[in-house]
Amino acid sequence: MTTSDATPRTLHELAAQFGIEAPRRDVEITGLNTIEAAGPTELTFLSNERYATKLKESAAGAALVPADFEGELPMPALRTAQPRIVFAKLMSAFHPRAQRPAGRHPTAIVPESCTIGDDVSIGAYVVLGENVTLGDRCVLHPHAVLYDDVVIGADCEIHGHVSLREGVVLGDRVIVHNGSVIGADGFGFEPDADGSLFKIPQVGSVRIADDVEIQANVCVDRSALGDTLVGEGTKIDNFAQIAHGCTIGKHSVICGQVGLAGSTKIGNHVMLGGGTGSAGHVEVGDGVQAAARSGIMMDLEPGAKVGGVPAIPIKDALRAVLYAPQVPSIARRLKKMERRVEALEEAENADA
Amino acid sequence: MTTSDATPRTLHELAAQFGIEAPRRDVEITGLNTIEAAGPTELTFLSNERYATKLKESAAGAALVPADFEGELPMPALRTAQPRIVFAKLMSAFHPRAQRPAGRHPTAIVPESCTIGDDVSIGAYVVLGENVTLGDRCVLHPHAVLYDDVVIGADCEIHGHVSLREGVVLGDRVIVHNGSVIGADGFGFEPDADGSLFKIPQVGSVRIADDVEIQANVCVDRSALGDTLVGEGTKIDNFAQIAHGCTIGKHSVICGQVGLAGSTKIGNHVMLGGGTGSAGHVEVGDGVQAAARSGIMMDLEPGAKVGGVPAIPIKDALRAVLYAPQVPSIARRLKKMERRVEALEEAENADA
Amino acid sequence: MTTSDATPRTLHELAAQFGIEAPRRDVEITGLNTIEAAGPTELTFLSNERYATKLKESAAGAALVPADFEGELPMPALRTAQPRIVFAKLMSAFHPRAQRPAGRHPTAIVPESCTIGDDVSIGAYVVLGENVTLGDRCVLHPHAVLYDDVVIGADCEIHGHVSLREGVVLGDRVIVHNGSVIGADGFGFEPDADGSLFKIPQVGSVRIADDVEIQANVCVDRSALGDTLVGEGTKIDNFAQIAHGCTIGKHSVICGQVGLAGSTKIGNHVMLGGGTGSAGHVEVGDGVQAAARSGIMMDLEPGAKVGGVPAIPIKDALRAVLYAPQVPSIARRLKKMERRVEALEEAENADA
Repeated sequence: MTTSDATPRTLHELAAQFGIEAPRRDVEITGLNTIEAAGPTELTFLSNERYATKLKESAAGAALVPADFEGELPMPALRTAQPRIVFAKLMSAFHPRAQRPAGRHPTAIVPESCTIGDDVSIGAYVVLGENVTLGDRCVLHPHAVLYDDVVIGADCEIHGHVSLREGVVLGDRVIVHNGSVIGADGFGFEPDADGSLFKIPQVGSVRIADDVEIQANVCVDRSALGDTLVGEGTKIDNFAQIAHGCTIGKHSVICGQVGLAGSTKIGNHVMLGGGTGSAGHVEVGDGVQAAARSGIMMDLEPGAKVGGVPAIPIKDALRAVLYAPQVPSIARRLKKMERRVEALEEAENADA
Repeated sequence: MTTSDATPRTLHELAAQFGIEAPRRDVEITGLNTIEAAGPTELTFLSNERYATKLKESAAGAALVPADFEGELPMPALRTAQPRIVFAKLMSAFHPRAQRPAGRHPTAIVPESCTIGDDVSIGAYVVLGENVTLGDRCVLHPHAVLYDDVVIGADCEIHGHVSLREGVVLGDRVIVHNGSVIGADGFGFEPDADGSLFKIPQVGSVRIADDVEIQANVCVDRSALGDTLVGEGTKIDNFAQIAHGCTIGKHSVICGQVGLAGSTKIGNHVMLGGGTGSAGHVEVGDGVQAAARSGIMMDLEPGAKVGGVPAIPIKDALRAVLYAPQVPSIARRLKKMERRVEALEEAENADA
Repeated sequence: MTTSDATPRTLHELAAQFGIEAPRRDVEITGLNTIEAAGPTELTFLSNERYATKLKESAAGAALVPADFEGELPMPALRTAQPRIVFAKLMSAFHPRAQRPAGRHPTAIVPESCTIGDDVSIGAYVVLGENVTLGDRCVLHPHAVLYDDVVIGADCEIHGHVSLREGVVLGDRVIVHNGSVIGADGFGFEPDADGSLFKIPQVGSVRIADDVEIQANVCVDRSALGDTLVGEGTKIDNFAQIAHGCTIGKHSVICGQVGLAGSTKIGNHVMLGGGTGSAGHVEVGDGVQAAARSGIMMDLEPGAKVGGVPAIPIKDALRAVLYAPQVPSIARRLKKMERRVEALEEAENADA
């Protein structure tokens, strides 16, 4: 699905809209498409240099490329220092978010005690608990389940098979994709005298701020006491595990399969690469960037760029990783050296 | 949600209940709360030394601290050598588990062939297959799905969007949180002569013993033959993957994102840190503790404390991890040494 | 559940069927079972050498063992160079896939605009969006949710709590287990001038070819442009994350907790061990085998056998892993050597 319902525009109009110098040739643009599939009225995007050769053979009507892109292209090109954000906004212009018609499917269960905003769309077999609040224009897809006392702001979209547990609070414009579970019990158990594990009631809650997007099959757990918090504009990818009592700041990016242990504190504008983990109670400063699979075991200063386990400055981590396969040969060379030094010492002793 | 419906008590009463020496000053306690949020009738808990300074500024009416906590506090304190289990039991006393009213939502599908215990609560849109058995006082939240022949003991709680597949057996007091899948097919395929992958029917089942708690979005797979087993009192956190034919003992702790390959055998009182993995068919003895992200590739003796990949004694693993970034400088120093030894050898030869 | 409805056969008949030399003694075989549980009319299978001793004590009526198995057995044995695929086919013969009766549960929501094949089984509370197409003999278990414009071929099986998002296309004989999400939005955001993250609409789709099996709680994401593709016969285990724009070839095996970053290209007959990850845009050639937890950061040639992070030839990776714990002692020995060489140099200088 790459064609668009939006009015077609010309390449020159698009250039003007984004303050980009217009190429000489103009062309009508009806949509965006991949390098391989784009046709003569479609704009394509060079997302990665490795596709430069393919781009030169593309049938696309126009191309969006980095300002420093070198070489001839068969189609007119928009050149910009920020090709990724321009691409994002072009996509958004050609694919405005679909509006769901307001309405309540007859099979949706909405107790009298709920407060439902205007123009809300509630799909088939949705179940709301008691005292749920939904803001204006929310969309609940079929099979969303909201437990008692959930509060959701305006313009949220909750997909099928999402569970929002008791008392969870979402801000405005929050999107939660299929299968995610917000507010299940934190993993809190203490070994008792007889060796069994005693469950600590998890009576805190989870609060998700405005403009957060949570992808599919994510878990954000509730805490024993106090709330687990996700700050404004933060995005959380599939299979991320946000344990009880974590606090995540604003506009941070939590990639897939990240695992944050209990009470981790993540700052604003942080980027945690896929599979990154944290030990409990650590603090990660604003603007930290952690490479994929980092193991954050101690606090990290704002702006740190880290990698490895434990997470250390990314340059050191990369060097360590690249040198690791040399350890067997280092061991061999060291062994040989020890013999040579021994021989030298014997000779020296003999001389003396 | 941190206030409690339970009768308020005094700090002295609580001290007596847990056999802790009472502080001089008494105070009425209505509930527990975090260091930041606790008010003058609330008890707070120092869960981690790093919050000691905050505790000194807390408005809490009382505090629970380790026996060896040093320094003055503005509030009376309960001091105990086991603060964590005392906290757990206090939480439990102030937050007794809510009782769901028995009843069957009219939309729940319960075939005639099912056997339903007393005082069972079955939520909206729950689907039971044929011949399902539910013990007394079970709670099935809306959108739980139980396939044919599932057998559940008494006092279990099954949350929304949980799938219990055909023939799965749960003991008493088992809790399964949202989105977990118990008894989906094991990942069993064999390459056939033509290079395609031939599916091995998975006709074993999964048996979960009493007092197990399974958090959200967990997978416990069924086996080709024989049962996958989870022992009494074991707790399994979000995203854990328990493959076909695994056996987990009693009172073990399987943290988030653990991945156990087929036929792994885990003993009693084992603790597997987050993201730990195992190779197939390995045996992990009773009481083993594996640090986060351990890679268990060989059998482990009872009581072993391990870490790293492959999992080795934790002390060695930590030392190896800390030294890994030194490898580049070791390589450089070795190179330099080799040159110096060569120079010495030449001098020695010249001398001779 | 290990007994079978299939007609019993004799061991000699089974031997003939698979072209295996028949043992002297014949015995009636009613089913397969584990070494521990098999009775006198059941065939058991030695899946791993470590169970050889147990096999000798088994009450099984017959055993399937590798051709090179040594030692006496109390029961007649089928010996074959390919015991695993013979086991798989025996399992399949004794446990043919159950046929679901065709029919549509009265609570299933099937809009007029859908196209439903013959002999389709649609379970309770299934929700189909507009314009969904289901091929002949498909089975949709209770609580499957298919968004608008989903197209499914013949003989597919979709389990409970599966979400197939808008426009997703499945071939014939595809199986999707519980909780998996196919076609949720790719994780595509770009930092905007104000530091917020701008969502890139994900208007591509996901296409799954014939004979693919997707286990439980898997995510296969849709892309901004173009389709995410999974090739014929490929099998994907629990918790695998297939990001936007990935292409997976035919008959590949993607084990549990694998995480493929955006636009990864995986060839045919590839095997990715559990927890393996890839960086974005890398290409993995046909027949590559990656050990558990490999980190694929660069393109891999066809047939490569790799391991480690970054993924390097498996032999080098294993050696590096085994030597890693020696780094602390290497550092110590190097230090000592430096002192001895210094002493030698001083002596040499003194001599000169």
